[in-house]
Amino acid sequence: MLITEIIEKKRDGYENSREEIEFMIRGAVNGGVEDYQLTAWMMAICCRGMSNEETALLTSAMVRSGEIVDLSDLPGVKVDKHSTGGVGDTSTLVAVPLVAACGGTVAKMSGRGLAHSGGTVDKLESVPGVCTEQPLERFKEIVRKTGACVVGQSKNLDPADKKMYALRDVSGTVLSIPLIASSIMSKKIASGANAIVLDVKAGSGAFMETPEKARELAETMVKIGKHVGRKTVALITDMNRPLGMSIGNGLEMKEAIEVLSGAVPPDDPLYTVCFAIAAQMLKLSGIVESEEQAYPMLTAAIESGEALKRLRTMLALLGGDVSFVDEPEKLVQVRKIIPVCARIRGFVGDMNARRIGSAALLLGAGREKLSDRIDPAVGIVMKKRCGEPIEKGEALAEFYVNDESRLEEALSLFNSGIGVVTEPPEEMPLIYDLID
Amino acid sequence: MLITEIIEKKRDGYENSREEIEFMIRGAVNGGVEDYQLTAWMMAICCRGMSNEETALLTSAMVRSGEIVDLSDLPGVKVDKHSTGGVGDTSTLVAVPLVAACGGTVAKMSGRGLAHSGGTVDKLESVPGVCTEQPLERFKEIVRKTGACVVGQSKNLDPADKKMYALRDVSGTVLSIPLIASSIMSKKIASGANAIVLDVKAGSGAFMETPEKARELAETMVKIGKHVGRKTVALITDMNRPLGMSIGNGLEMKEAIEVLSGAVPPDDPLYTVCFAIAAQMLKLSGIVESEEQAYPMLTAAIESGEALKRLRTMLALLGGDVSFVDEPEKLVQVRKIIPVCARIRGFVGDMNARRIGSAALLLGAGREKLSDRIDPAVGIVMKKRCGEPIEKGEALAEFYVNDESRLEEALSLFNSGIGVVTEPPEEMPLIYDLID
Repeated sequence: MLITEIIEKKRDGYENSREEIEFMIRGAVNGGVEDYQLTAWMMAICCRGMSNEETALLTSAMVRSGEIVDLSDLPGVKVDKHSTGGVGDTSTLVAVPLVAACGGTVAKMSGRGLAHSGGTVDKLESVPGVCTEQPLERFKEIVRKTGACVVGQSKNLDPADKKMYALRDVSGTVLSIPLIASSIMSKKIASGANAIVLDVKAGSGAFMETPEKARELAETMVKIGKHVGRKTVALITDMNRPLGMSIGNGLEMKEAIEVLSGAVPPDDPLYTVCFAIAAQMLKLSGIVESEEQAYPMLTAAIESGEALKRLRTMLALLGGDVSFVDEPEKLVQVRKIIPVCARIRGFVGDMNARRIGSAALLLGAGREKLSDRIDPAVGIVMKKRCGEPIEKGEALAEFYVNDESRLEEALSLFNSGIGVVTEPPEEMPLIYDLID
Repeated sequence: MLITEIIEKKRDGYENSREEIEFMIRGAVNGGVEDYQLTAWMMAICCRGMSNEETALLTSAMVRSGEIVDLSDLPGVKVDKHSTGGVGDTSTLVAVPLVAACGGTVAKMSGRGLAHSGGTVDKLESVPGVCTEQPLERFKEIVRKTGACVVGQSKNLDPADKKMYALRDVSGTVLSIPLIASSIMSKKIASGANAIVLDVKAGSGAFMETPEKARELAETMVKIGKHVGRKTVALITDMNRPLGMSIGNGLEMKEAIEVLSGAVPPDDPLYTVCFAIAAQMLKLSGIVESEEQAYPMLTAAIESGEALKRLRTMLALLGGDVSFVDEPEKLVQVRKIIPVCARIRGFVGDMNARRIGSAALLLGAGREKLSDRIDPAVGIVMKKRCGEPIEKGEALAEFYVNDESRLEEALSLFNSGIGVVTEPPEEMPLIYDLID
């Protein structure tokens, strides 16, 4: 098989066959296909797209490029969730213990934050002692004990994605629905789940800036899931604004604990999205037949304290110091808390979640590149939501700060991502759609 | 400037700016842009195209990536010609001495053959002793003495093209009009000519398989030439069939000598195309005002023997043994001449020039890769033209053979590229158009 002919077919808008796609992915991992050939092929995919059939074949080939986690000795349906990445979105820390408390099984591998987006592994590690690198048997043992475990991604999982993602990042080939969809789904499938709930974000803080693009990605991923025999559904949710009130790893862990403690009202956006995700996870697990059945169970899991107990146990089994769960203020001890105040009276205007997330990054809550170190205690706490009235001099947000070296830059970026306006902005949906 | 942003702009169908194009070309040569970034960008160019402005900027950046030959100390207009590559097309060996004999100045750098296409440097070297690597001063001295010199391309010329061409060849990014046009034109412009006559081939033996595609390439190159202040015209000529009767280096040199000796009638296709090219070269040189004025001068240059004398002198000054010009049979001494005969009576049907060229390659007349060695004496001589009546058992062609190891393969490929049919095939134009 000639590599150039495979690339040329895609360049000219034709479909690549199963054999051609497998040849490219095998070659990506074993060196038979050079980097400069892989990026040319991926650029042709960016420009010409891929059919659903091709995207599923690509995903399957990526799954088989490395280790496939075998969860078959765990009981019941293993359900996973994945968010395409956002700001102040700690739904994994809330939804996973909720599902476990309702009898579901979640054996989940998660990632780290990059750029303006957070990552669950970093949030877990905000609790001192937590180790997110666990041997497979220990990972399963934690799932057996508490119904849920979230760890970092296994090093041997999906090497094709590692290679392709690293190259895409530096060759202008990130923004392609078949490439994004296969990257996400191949990792989820290789992680061994039977069922997958996707939360596809749309808006200024997301990869997909419009609900239409997010829907296209969601539909592509749901089709891949079905193609490879995994029950898959996708929610499309808003990411024009941070989802929760906290942005930063310890701050988000603290907010998750608050939600699980019942300290947050049910119309809270983070609470709403977490319940929507958890309800889908319970439905795919076969524990409930409809979302409507799920909601009372989920509410009960909060009211009884069972959901919070599951998070606490999981963190303890991962080596964490659970006094930080019992006294979450310990997670966010910083040198300074600086209020950011409104300069005029009015309403909180529309936000740019990417800029707000990037401001938190500049405070040390995130990374520009994967090797950067983060400070788990710092970040931003929003004091007002979009559309709320605000007085002149009232706080829009509080900055949790240790290192002030990029504070000015962070303030300026934050202020460019939020404004006070004289008329309340239009209300926008929080959940756009469900694709199943 | 962010490389990924430059690539993404092109991926998304926007134009790259002058600064962006220059940045990429500088980076291609000095290593600041990685190979996998360059191929992603070139694939985006394949898929999204480039405006005429961008293509001209790309060409200029490539020209400035290396040495620019200074021919300003040679008298008059320096006129160059370039063919996009074909089979049995030895027009350079005929047109260049013709133009010199009529008072033109041709200081030309040429390439080697690859795949089914021949190259002038290989044909020159079929004359024992000829050295096509000459220092610049010697090259110019030969031009001063005889009005014409053809040598190999200077090693420091257009390093961006060398890099890009090598990568395009292995990354499926060859077939792109802006990339082909800038590759050809940047080398011509860096070689120092003031005026350029292009022969853009269309058909089965050419890069551009249809006259429409050939016209698009021709128009792009003519616009580049004008943009950088070089008088440029392009002929679009047929390459469904071999142009001359000979395919192979010594065989083509022998045929060129025959044309220049007046041994070939004026309706011969090679003669016709060579005259059309030479007439344009004389016009761009300012020696004639119209093609009509050129034709009698060109005929006279053949009848007087002056054109052949120019070729002979040039070969002598390049170190060649001119007894091979005087007795051209010495160029094609082979172990065996094998006739390939018609199996039925009829007419010679349409041809596939690529297959016929590739059959000659299998006999040793060409190369699959640039490091392959060629045998200057071997090749194919066509005995019939397309449309001619032929008797059963009459020779369609003769194979000039030394090494028989791939003879069967060559015969089979040749036979798949020519057939005998019961009705004469439709006559096709030899020269489709002139773009100026």
